[in-house]
Amino acid sequence: MLTFNMALKLVQDELKNLHFEQSPHSLFEPIEYILSLGGKRLRPVLSLLSCDLFGAEAPLYVRPILGFEVFHNFTLLHDDLMDKASMRRNQPTVHLKWNNNAAILSGDAMLIAAYQLIAEAPDFCTKEINALFSKTAMEICAGQQYDMEFENRLDVTEADYLEMIRLKTAVLLACALQAGALLAKACPKDQASIYQFGINIGMAFQLQDDLLDVYGDPKTFGKNIGGDILCDKKTFLYIKAYKGANTTQKAELDKWLGFFPKDPNQKISAITQIYNEMELKTETEQLMTSYYNKAMSCLNDLTIPAERSNLLRKIAQNLLNRNS
Amino acid sequence: MLTFNMALKLVQDELKNLHFEQSPHSLFEPIEYILSLGGKRLRPVLSLLSCDLFGAEAPLYVRPILGFEVFHNFTLLHDDLMDKASMRRNQPTVHLKWNNNAAILSGDAMLIAAYQLIAEAPDFCTKEINALFSKTAMEICAGQQYDMEFENRLDVTEADYLEMIRLKTAVLLACALQAGALLAKACPKDQASIYQFGINIGMAFQLQDDLLDVYGDPKTFGKNIGGDILCDKKTFLYIKAYKGANTTQKAELDKWLGFFPKDPNQKISAITQIYNEMELKTETEQLMTSYYNKAMSCLNDLTIPAERSNLLRKIAQNLLNRNS
Repeated sequence: MLTFNMALKLVQDELKNLHFEQSPHSLFEPIEYILSLGGKRLRPVLSLLSCDLFGAEAPLYVRPILGFEVFHNFTLLHDDLMDKASMRRNQPTVHLKWNNNAAILSGDAMLIAAYQLIAEAPDFCTKEINALFSKTAMEICAGQQYDMEFENRLDVTEADYLEMIRLKTAVLLACALQAGALLAKACPKDQASIYQFGINIGMAFQLQDDLLDVYGDPKTFGKNIGGDILCDKKTFLYIKAYKGANTTQKAELDKWLGFFPKDPNQKISAITQIYNEMELKTETEQLMTSYYNKAMSCLNDLTIPAERSNLLRKIAQNLLNRNS
Repeated sequence: MLTFNMALKLVQDELKNLHFEQSPHSLFEPIEYILSLGGKRLRPVLSLLSCDLFGAEAPLYVRPILGFEVFHNFTLLHDDLMDKASMRRNQPTVHLKWNNNAAILSGDAMLIAAYQLIAEAPDFCTKEINALFSKTAMEICAGQQYDMEFENRLDVTEADYLEMIRLKTAVLLACALQAGALLAKACPKDQASIYQFGINIGMAFQLQDDLLDVYGDPKTFGKNIGGDILCDKKTFLYIKAYKGANTTQKAELDKWLGFFPKDPNQKISAITQIYNEMELKTETEQLMTSYYNKAMSCLNDLTIPAERSNLLRKIAQNLLNRNS
């Protein structure tokens, strides 16, 4: 069986072998740049491990599976432009390093490249994988649209938020996992279970992201702590705080909304204090745990021997205990 | 056999039946808007007629064929944003009616929707049509990249320009025509001939566009005459003028480059006069005719009875004699 590191190495090696068209160089340079910035490569790794789990020769399918990584980076490229983000993985974003038009057009080319890679899946499952991928890609656009709309809304409910992160984050993990199962000709029931495993770890993963932004260790987190707080992002913590705040807390939240003090730490510590008073760290961790448990139960539902899925269990656990 | 109007009606009716997801409405509204603005619907009409030409029940395949129209409108949406265009078909462009982010994200969703429609092609040709479409889509990104780069270059050669319009305009017509042939199980030789027919009418079509911008009738053209001249667009006429100008003409061209007079007609008539002195209208028409003749010879190469392709001959002729 494949280990996590073996799968990661397969992905990294094949990424190096990806060659885009040579001309016009200016169209493909931003694509190579963003793919070179690194990242966890979680989607293709999970896809390979799922493929291996269901008994296929996963290394045969690295190229179609890389389509999910190329697609993921396409979404980062266009999202960074839409969000006017200046840094991605400690490097300047494409629209700053080049310009807005480069980010738009190279992003488009990247989405097409993702489809081209995914089309390399073997004939017996091209149609299903292509349909699953398109459905997922459309859901991710919907997720990004909700995310942008939430910025200007104060009436976002917990349910709205959870649906947004399902669309924006969880479905691509689920799609990559199901694609691995499709490549391995897993039965429909197992495909559905591994998809739901992906949804549930995706939800837990994003909640963990929200927590790390507030409670992460600056040394290991890689980004500045409090970034979400500074830009009034409607995270799970913020939504819970806004809804459950008492009069004093509500006044404090309203005071900081849309206000960017010279010393960002003022805002960050004021909001963090409210989260602490309301014990939202614990509440978020409880919700994460419930998603984690659902994910485990999806693995238990698989028709394959339980020990084969232990690696996915371990990965899910590590994702929740991560500090970056 | 299908007539032009029958094919157009099939396309228009099915376009009305296209329903995008309901939620989030804000993501799909711009897509419905740009598709409602009209246009010649040339790509799906040609695809249907090609399918019919090679003996298939073309109406069965309207939905996958509509993918080319959705894709074409996706390129208009993103190109208008990149070119900062304010009007499209006499209506405000998406990034002005909504905003830049709406144009980016709804455009992305539209590219995915195009893939979803094209994936509805029957199993015997899904793989080929998908591959042909992805190759073409990537070429069109390259064409747009060249087009943008040419804006800031004065060393663009005639060959550079012709390659740019082949990529930006001709390949999608060719792809739509070949897809029709694929759906009708035409032999590879006929597929190649109908593809080349598309390339050649595409080249002639774009050269005609360049001419209409200068010599079109304002009453029928639908856009302002001289738009390309005003923004220093490197059209075929401009490139020929810049290369062949005598000292006086060169000085005049340089004088107007990057200069936007209060009265736009000053610039338009000065540049048009140079085109007239150099007889560039005739030269462009000669090149158009040579592409037209190549297109006709591609139809003659088809293995089907010549009279079956008379409709495409007539359409090609009308495209060159159009005034809008």
